[in-house]
Amino acid sequence: MSRFFHLEKTCPQTKARAGTLNTPHGSVPTPVFLPVGSQGTVKTLTPDELRSLGVNMLLSNTYHLYLRPGIEIIRKLGGLHRFMSWDGPILTDSGGFQVFSLGHLRRVNDDGVLFRSHIDGSEHFLTPELATELQEQLGADIIMVLDECPPYGEDIANIKRATERSHLWAERCKRKHGRKRQALFGIVHGGTFPELRRQSADFMTSLGFPGYAIGGLSLGEPKEVMHEMLDETVSLLPEDKPRYLMGVGSPEDLVECVARGVDIFDSALPTRLGRNGAVFTKSRRYNISNARFKEREGPLDSDCDCYTCRTFSAAYLHHLFKAQELLAYRLATIHNVRFIMRLMEQIRRSIFDDTFSEFKDSFIGNYQPTDADTRSEQKRKWLRARQGKYRINELD
Amino acid sequence: MSRFFHLEKTCPQTKARAGTLNTPHGSVPTPVFLPVGSQGTVKTLTPDELRSLGVNMLLSNTYHLYLRPGIEIIRKLGGLHRFMSWDGPILTDSGGFQVFSLGHLRRVNDDGVLFRSHIDGSEHFLTPELATELQEQLGADIIMVLDECPPYGEDIANIKRATERSHLWAERCKRKHGRKRQALFGIVHGGTFPELRRQSADFMTSLGFPGYAIGGLSLGEPKEVMHEMLDETVSLLPEDKPRYLMGVGSPEDLVECVARGVDIFDSALPTRLGRNGAVFTKSRRYNISNARFKEREGPLDSDCDCYTCRTFSAAYLHHLFKAQELLAYRLATIHNVRFIMRLMEQIRRSIFDDTFSEFKDSFIGNYQPTDADTRSEQKRKWLRARQGKYRINELD
Repeated sequence: MSRFFHLEKTCPQTKARAGTLNTPHGSVPTPVFLPVGSQGTVKTLTPDELRSLGVNMLLSNTYHLYLRPGIEIIRKLGGLHRFMSWDGPILTDSGGFQVFSLGHLRRVNDDGVLFRSHIDGSEHFLTPELATELQEQLGADIIMVLDECPPYGEDIANIKRATERSHLWAERCKRKHGRKRQALFGIVHGGTFPELRRQSADFMTSLGFPGYAIGGLSLGEPKEVMHEMLDETVSLLPEDKPRYLMGVGSPEDLVECVARGVDIFDSALPTRLGRNGAVFTKSRRYNISNARFKEREGPLDSDCDCYTCRTFSAAYLHHLFKAQELLAYRLATIHNVRFIMRLMEQIRRSIFDDTFSEFKDSFIGNYQPTDADTRSEQKRKWLRARQGKYRINELD
Repeated sequence: MSRFFHLEKTCPQTKARAGTLNTPHGSVPTPVFLPVGSQGTVKTLTPDELRSLGVNMLLSNTYHLYLRPGIEIIRKLGGLHRFMSWDGPILTDSGGFQVFSLGHLRRVNDDGVLFRSHIDGSEHFLTPELATELQEQLGADIIMVLDECPPYGEDIANIKRATERSHLWAERCKRKHGRKRQALFGIVHGGTFPELRRQSADFMTSLGFPGYAIGGLSLGEPKEVMHEMLDETVSLLPEDKPRYLMGVGSPEDLVECVARGVDIFDSALPTRLGRNGAVFTKSRRYNISNARFKEREGPLDSDCDCYTCRTFSAAYLHHLFKAQELLAYRLATIHNVRFIMRLMEQIRRSIFDDTFSEFKDSFIGNYQPTDADTRSEQKRKWLRARQGKYRINELD
């Protein structure tokens, strides 16, 4: 049997790596980006379309599926792959991040976390054991330990307490985990505190997982801080295990974080932006609803090979967004997902060609990111919209 | 050059006919159903998908495209086919029905109709000449004369006045019509009054059009009344010209009206129902949001060959509708459009096989239509929602 992760190539100038993940539903070339299908669907797209866009692996959310339609229904219907008719690999998160960002009235102690559904207000208690069991029932190829996810900006005492609790929970998940065909990943926490990051990386690697996620980043902290934390963490993780940076998906972040040694990414950003009319190009992202595209004859992005760009004018997309036509959201999603998948393909090829470092410099040099203030403001707004007011009440 | 309409076969027991329409964008087997793409898109679907569902021809709405994005923009971008990237035949309506059902504050006289946009309240004056010119600029294969469209239930004096005005307008459209590659259809009116229907059919055929529409039906009148009016009208129309019943699209109506000699249909019903979770089967339509489908393993319709039914369980569709996922609307639309296209294929085949009469009896015998009261109530609600309060103010 082939190893779960096969490291094939490392970049001589950066920490970028190319490899292959071998899962029960097929192998996945890395670095890889996972589109997000929270409710068992990548919004607007069919499984066939995802394949044709070059998608190899998806992420789905245990929290969402647990609340609706319920894990038991999916299990009865043959598991998540069959339910959503996707026969490629799937990664499920544990529900931790969603409980702490979407759930209401959460109270947490070492046993687990009590929360109310954001859908109907019903009360639920999530433990490490339950999170593991739910993910085993869903049947994803990679599953995650339950973790406590405080927001950016908490003080060191709170982050320390949450990190230590995440350690306890990781141990319990590992103990509970029975279906060994599913790879259970540990998650390194520690917020933006280097010493906590180091402690967490040491603890997680001492438990021994087939892969390691880096949690608690991309939550509104400055980019330099994210990069610093990534450097601290990745240097302590074993070379032969894949590293997964949760919640990162902007083009420039993907390039920068591959260079820092990350193999796996997921984010709802490309699909969410697409539904809002914001589309990627290699120089920047722009909004197609802007009046200047009203009569634009060319495609969204003249460098793009996606169905949308091969078939329709920017003016048509502009019209569909103005008219709030459902096809608009789908066509822009197709473009953004294809843009990101093509970027990952270019990154991987350049690692094999020993040209990743030039590729990175050239990409970052040409790409005008949305400015830092706008970005963090957008991120904060999005997180606030999800959270209401963030609050953790200690139980007892 | 082949004739515009070639009548190939008539049913010995009923008035059903099979033929071919030859248009600048290809030929279309009849009887044919046209899905509706009001704003230059059949909601949720791409042109590729429409083709794969067996769609040969689309309808689009001059009124909608005139208000947004504007006919001039579409003309500049190469016409409607290129704008929406559909290279098959298109029929555009004149805007008449939409002005009278969607526009506000309409005032009408023999010159034309003054209305306010339902989008931004801007004022517009639509004349027969302008309606013809706009449709020529869009470049559809079949275009329609401008007609006054009173609702069901008006008294005979009002219907007579509107019908006579529609006659004047039809003449003016014919006179204005320059691009002879586009087939301009006349529209027979007369409401539910047999003598007015006969007068209108006589008048329209005396003008001589390459095809004739039957307007002013399927507006909430009882089915028997619609059938009677159809019989009155069709018997006066020339055998060698296609007949188009506007706004009809339920399975049982399609079968019944083919039997009464209609060749062309359009309706937003299959797509609109789909977006509301109502799906067709050969025995009835049902709503997938109903709790009894929560764990249903089989497809929406076990007799169906569409992508949705070949790929997903009813339980998955139920979940997508409950979660208000955009993919839900698309998958149900795919099913309903494919259901109707397959029905039209079966009808046509049975006409050639001399088995249409049995097919009709068997279909109608097995199909449980939504009951008459519910149907007319739904229709009235839908029309009311579009119209606000119906009102025609005579100008001067």
